[in-house]
Amino acid sequence: MDRLIVTPQTFRFDTPLPLQSGAVLPAYELVVETYGTLNADRSNAVLVCHALNASHHVAGLHADADGQPLPRSEGWWHNMIGPGKPVDTDRWFVIGVNNLGSCFGSTGPTHTNPATGQAWGADFPVVTVEDWVNAQARLLDAMGIQTLAAVMGGSLGGMQTLSWTLQYPDRVRHAVVVASAPNLTAENIAFNEVARRAIVTDPDFHGGHYLAHDTLPRRGLRIARMIGHITYLSDDVMNAKFGRTLKPADLENPLASGAAWGYRYSTTDVEFQIESYLRYQGDKFSEYFDANTYLLITRALDYFDPARAHDGNLSRALARATAKFLLVSFTTDWRFSPARSREMVKALLDNRRDVSYAEIDAPHGHDAFLLDDPRYHAAVRTYFEQTVAQATGGRA
Amino acid sequence: MDRLIVTPQTFRFDTPLPLQSGAVLPAYELVVETYGTLNADRSNAVLVCHALNASHHVAGLHADADGQPLPRSEGWWHNMIGPGKPVDTDRWFVIGVNNLGSCFGSTGPTHTNPATGQAWGADFPVVTVEDWVNAQARLLDAMGIQTLAAVMGGSLGGMQTLSWTLQYPDRVRHAVVVASAPNLTAENIAFNEVARRAIVTDPDFHGGHYLAHDTLPRRGLRIARMIGHITYLSDDVMNAKFGRTLKPADLENPLASGAAWGYRYSTTDVEFQIESYLRYQGDKFSEYFDANTYLLITRALDYFDPARAHDGNLSRALARATAKFLLVSFTTDWRFSPARSREMVKALLDNRRDVSYAEIDAPHGHDAFLLDDPRYHAAVRTYFEQTVAQATGGRA
Repeated sequence: MDRLIVTPQTFRFDTPLPLQSGAVLPAYELVVETYGTLNADRSNAVLVCHALNASHHVAGLHADADGQPLPRSEGWWHNMIGPGKPVDTDRWFVIGVNNLGSCFGSTGPTHTNPATGQAWGADFPVVTVEDWVNAQARLLDAMGIQTLAAVMGGSLGGMQTLSWTLQYPDRVRHAVVVASAPNLTAENIAFNEVARRAIVTDPDFHGGHYLAHDTLPRRGLRIARMIGHITYLSDDVMNAKFGRTLKPADLENPLASGAAWGYRYSTTDVEFQIESYLRYQGDKFSEYFDANTYLLITRALDYFDPARAHDGNLSRALARATAKFLLVSFTTDWRFSPARSREMVKALLDNRRDVSYAEIDAPHGHDAFLLDDPRYHAAVRTYFEQTVAQATGGRA
Repeated sequence: MDRLIVTPQTFRFDTPLPLQSGAVLPAYELVVETYGTLNADRSNAVLVCHALNASHHVAGLHADADGQPLPRSEGWWHNMIGPGKPVDTDRWFVIGVNNLGSCFGSTGPTHTNPATGQAWGADFPVVTVEDWVNAQARLLDAMGIQTLAAVMGGSLGGMQTLSWTLQYPDRVRHAVVVASAPNLTAENIAFNEVARRAIVTDPDFHGGHYLAHDTLPRRGLRIARMIGHITYLSDDVMNAKFGRTLKPADLENPLASGAAWGYRYSTTDVEFQIESYLRYQGDKFSEYFDANTYLLITRALDYFDPARAHDGNLSRALARATAKFLLVSFTTDWRFSPARSREMVKALLDNRRDVSYAEIDAPHGHDAFLLDDPRYHAAVRTYFEQTVAQATGGRA
């Protein structure tokens, strides 16, 4: 079952894409993976939208030149999507697409700006959740899919899912919105802003044209990622995983430098395991993630706010949605708390929409949406087996 | 009443101070302010311990050369301490002392290292809460004060207060511990670590010897302060104060750059008021606070953990304390949550100590301990008027 081998495909679009900012993206490419088989009446397609740090590689494994699966190449939602999994690819045709502005294959800041022949860098236009959804809709046109059985996503992916139901209500039968929110709070924006300032004020940022200077703003990206990681985890799970435990080297030599209690008494060395973990996560991220992409994606999060055009009234904003909804939140998620999901549930109920809502008692904070909590997966499985399957007339 | 003019005094100590790390601080100075009058039997002294960003200037106003009060020169706890205030300086002799390692007058990293003739910089020894308390005890010796009517402090100041009751149980009659914790959680340490990494990886940090390079790691300090500010405020108060409001320039020109909804669509310009606020706080801080001091003080927070020497058993750790206690916490403080105060209350009750505890329903998060919530101030006032005054036999 875990031997599902996938190969990304690239779709090229030569019709310019008008963006919400007023800018226009000339030609562009989207990198896509699909899992399962599109049925004859093209009614079993499920689109998966990704969050900040992810890509089109949602499920399955990548293979080497000999067709052998590469170790640790599982897609980011492999526990959710695949043969026999909650979103069963024996039944559903699942589509993963990398968003515009990303650094994992679709057109983004590391690609060549046709106007200059140089990397776009900081000149890549600001893209929004709505722009991503428009690009995804064109992808479906190219694939010959008019209507989606479901759109689904967690976090920022949940925002795209919600936006699908507002921008293309006729093309979405079901929306699965996990660990998401109808907009960011001031605190959410604040954390994004600190991360962006860390990147932009890194002397190696060079106004976003670091590639032309043959460098990367690694220091800023490390800080950004460390901040992000803190907000993805709950206080409880951090205490359970790391607590105040010292890093192992100190435990082996508890009286290093003559100090009592195993402390090293340094302001710059790693002392606690949590520090070591965060530094490692930051270092790793700074080697593979593009800084301009980080700025773009956090800004897309900040800007998303469908109620804004309705004087902040979310119920009025969601009146356009005709899809059926499953919303899921996690009790210890302080980034996108259950209260934010309940706002969406209420606004949908105000419009007499068909809504299921699961609030999962999980200790893992925002990260829970990527983990395989059995109650969470059972809720998604049941929703697909009973509600989505019923609406689309059964098997592929 | 608000015309209390104060002048700092400097106390010099030529007896070396052994530190918890094993290092020894040779000679050092402490800058001190006092308010009110020490009574004949020296029984009305109240020591106030400061937190990260504060100093000896607890109450009153500073004056210019002509003796006129300087505008906005109020001490950091001026709403709490002064004539007729909850800690009434007509009755109590209040002492504010700047801690070692600070950048507000007491010996610290910006001062000259006698061994090199250069600024200490990163070579200033790591100081702990226990070291600060030892230095404060020597100060009291120099002032001829054997026993304190009370020690009090908020946040890191509350940790010093708690430590006083453990290091010098015979010298403390009452301890007022506000918005504090018996140690930091993994999440608390994580935020400190990100702030430190931002400072240390700033190219202008120069291994902590930026003064010798005639520069300051302002970028890192800005990021550190922005992170700090987010953790001082509650999510609710941030939403109430800033929400998703755009910065005023955009409101005046809602369709700037042809964009709908007043968005400017920029990843680097200020878009939301919360961003503007955080940048301003970061900029201001980076001009007056010393980076090495920031590292030292956050590390003192990380290291404080009186239960550590007792296998994590806080009740056993607090058995040494003989003082009476008032603890105060604030419901929306997610940095040092009420649960952390309740841990201390429980550990003290396990030892049959005399404990009062007030959990104040305030919206302001950790910052609430500096604000003048009437229930909070009433709790402190009542404690001083009834419990502390009774024990010390009344008026000065």
